[in-house]
Amino acid sequence: MADLILVLNAGSSSLKFCAFDAGGSGGLALVIHGQAEGLFSSPRFTAFDAHGQPAGEHAWGEGVQLSHAEAITHIADFLRGQGSGHRLVAVGHRVVHGGAHFTQPVLATAAILDQLETLTPLAPLHQPHNLRPMRIIAERMPSMPQVACFDTAFHTTQPPLAQAFALPESVTKKGVRRYGFHGLSYEYIASVLPDIAPEAATGRTVVAHLGNGASLCALRAGKSVASTMGFTAVDGLMMGTRCGTLDPGVVLYLLDELGMDAGEIEDLLYRRSGLLGVSGISGDMRALLAADDPRAVFAIDLYVYRICRELGSMGAALHGLDALVFTAGIGQHSAEIRRRVCEEARWWGIELDDAANARGGPRVSTPTSKVSAWVVPTNEELMIARHTLALTQGAPA
Amino acid sequence: MADLILVLNAGSSSLKFCAFDAGGSGGLALVIHGQAEGLFSSPRFTAFDAHGQPAGEHAWGEGVQLSHAEAITHIADFLRGQGSGHRLVAVGHRVVHGGAHFTQPVLATAAILDQLETLTPLAPLHQPHNLRPMRIIAERMPSMPQVACFDTAFHTTQPPLAQAFALPESVTKKGVRRYGFHGLSYEYIASVLPDIAPEAATGRTVVAHLGNGASLCALRAGKSVASTMGFTAVDGLMMGTRCGTLDPGVVLYLLDELGMDAGEIEDLLYRRSGLLGVSGISGDMRALLAADDPRAVFAIDLYVYRICRELGSMGAALHGLDALVFTAGIGQHSAEIRRRVCEEARWWGIELDDAANARGGPRVSTPTSKVSAWVVPTNEELMIARHTLALTQGAPA
Repeated sequence: MADLILVLNAGSSSLKFCAFDAGGSGGLALVIHGQAEGLFSSPRFTAFDAHGQPAGEHAWGEGVQLSHAEAITHIADFLRGQGSGHRLVAVGHRVVHGGAHFTQPVLATAAILDQLETLTPLAPLHQPHNLRPMRIIAERMPSMPQVACFDTAFHTTQPPLAQAFALPESVTKKGVRRYGFHGLSYEYIASVLPDIAPEAATGRTVVAHLGNGASLCALRAGKSVASTMGFTAVDGLMMGTRCGTLDPGVVLYLLDELGMDAGEIEDLLYRRSGLLGVSGISGDMRALLAADDPRAVFAIDLYVYRICRELGSMGAALHGLDALVFTAGIGQHSAEIRRRVCEEARWWGIELDDAANARGGPRVSTPTSKVSAWVVPTNEELMIARHTLALTQGAPA
Repeated sequence: MADLILVLNAGSSSLKFCAFDAGGSGGLALVIHGQAEGLFSSPRFTAFDAHGQPAGEHAWGEGVQLSHAEAITHIADFLRGQGSGHRLVAVGHRVVHGGAHFTQPVLATAAILDQLETLTPLAPLHQPHNLRPMRIIAERMPSMPQVACFDTAFHTTQPPLAQAFALPESVTKKGVRRYGFHGLSYEYIASVLPDIAPEAATGRTVVAHLGNGASLCALRAGKSVASTMGFTAVDGLMMGTRCGTLDPGVVLYLLDELGMDAGEIEDLLYRRSGLLGVSGISGDMRALLAADDPRAVFAIDLYVYRICRELGSMGAALHGLDALVFTAGIGQHSAEIRRRVCEEARWWGIELDDAANARGGPRVSTPTSKVSAWVVPTNEELMIARHTLALTQGAPA
């Protein structure tokens, strides 16, 4: 008999889920995870057990449209079929935007959902999809506790100067400020650093979350003091298909001189830039590292260069650097990108241990390295499950 | 009998001029300078001699419109009236944009002017005004040598990675890249550093040009390797009325959610942001330093914070920092802003000498400071005059 906490991460055309056993003595244990994807083109469901072995699969066929509600039904049916002993006790949701108000996870009551909906203009591409499953579950299972966990909340500890744009109050009071994202990832990393890398937990540490989306976060004693993502998730580092930092004058040029409209510019900056745009080949770092093309080489060089420039800016926010932590897809799995970043950042006093880096850490710097470097796998779903458990069952997050 | 080199800096509604004696044994000597301003609202002409004493004045009255051509006529008449011995031998012009092609000043032939006109889409607010006086003078005095000096040229030594945005080739091949501006100021500073601060001339140096516009330039042995201004002069540092670095997603939000058009956004980011926008009081640093208002305090704090964050990014481009040089209006005249920047940047190893800072330098760091700090007055007009002399009379720039 296991009490399950379900974690949902809903996108525009996908629904990812993880189920954790909340009752184990060793804390939350992953039981099963998977996703429904391609909801409106060619829906497909896949699930895997805690060991990564396939545990379920279904395809609806080309052209079928599966609503988020139907996807939830499928996931719920699937979970029920996994064992008669399971009992769902709470659902935790990833919500991209908590605005300035939500500084920590919150029980998603109807009033809270209404409040979160008002933040949609700040994240029109994500917020509605994040909220939809909460509405659906509230309707079907009114007594099921649901928790909203925000990608922005961890960054609310940043000083006002780090959150400000140099814009007039008439604009900033509408919520135009730097929020930062990937907060659940950084919060998880900060929570495990004391065990893995105590000096990184207490010192001036930059965490490099290098996944499909990518950002840096400057941590002082585990609290966010700055991050590269700003008002939106397009700012900061170069990403798979996003441009990162861009002169706002470029957007005006695209409007005025190239005659593009807002939708076309959004498509350009979010989906046709970054590694994909610069290389003209792929937004996948593995493909570029394997490619023998000068454009791929330049794209990777620019990716590393931009990380190191922003690392300088983060170091300035921290007044120095004690540790650098790599996480997320590229950060955890690409020894080559870690090597190049540490090489370019050697002037900080980072001395890479090649063998440790090839092994994947956790420590990838030499014992005498002035600034230590680490690989720490992130786990945003576990962070959401912890918050959900804490808010619904009273356990510490 | 003096050979004069005239330097013109034309804006949308103003025309600044400096006349240098090209024949002096001690190099170029300023003879007279001034401006015609308010061309299309309330034109006014003022001139000063080399000692800053008033040398001429004229006002046309409210509502009069004075064309650039008429302003040039007035300046020419004024110069002729200054002494029968003067002979104009060449005219040098400040041109904001030289694109990727112009890596140094150039004799402004008709063909060159046509080429420079094609760059107008890259700087629609400045380029046409910069070029107009060249056309006018070419028509009136076809044999007068004219030299175009570019604000971008000094930065063409930057590595391709520092010049690139993470955008697809379809966009970058239209010229969307980082150019950097204030190049004539940085070039002048680099030219005098060997005499004033030899270690800054050869080392890793960041120059902070803090005027109405503001930017940082990272110099390695006197060559630009990075700068905070990008495609346009709105990027990078917070300025008097310009926002500086801004998440491009904010521009999309202003379009989509606030319903602003490109012109309104340009007005917001160029003329209603920065110190003025954040304080709600003034874009003039002196006024804010004198104000007793929390918004003024926050605006100044943000100004300093943004300089120091970008200083981190510049230091990363240089792989460390040996010297910091302040120049332009605020950089040369505000001991308080220099103090705050050096305080916030102390972690680099900058140790301010308060007495030297109060005196205005040139060296404002203590003798034992690991990173040295300096005040070096800039002189963009003299730099243009030197280039003009070099290209027309064969003297070294």
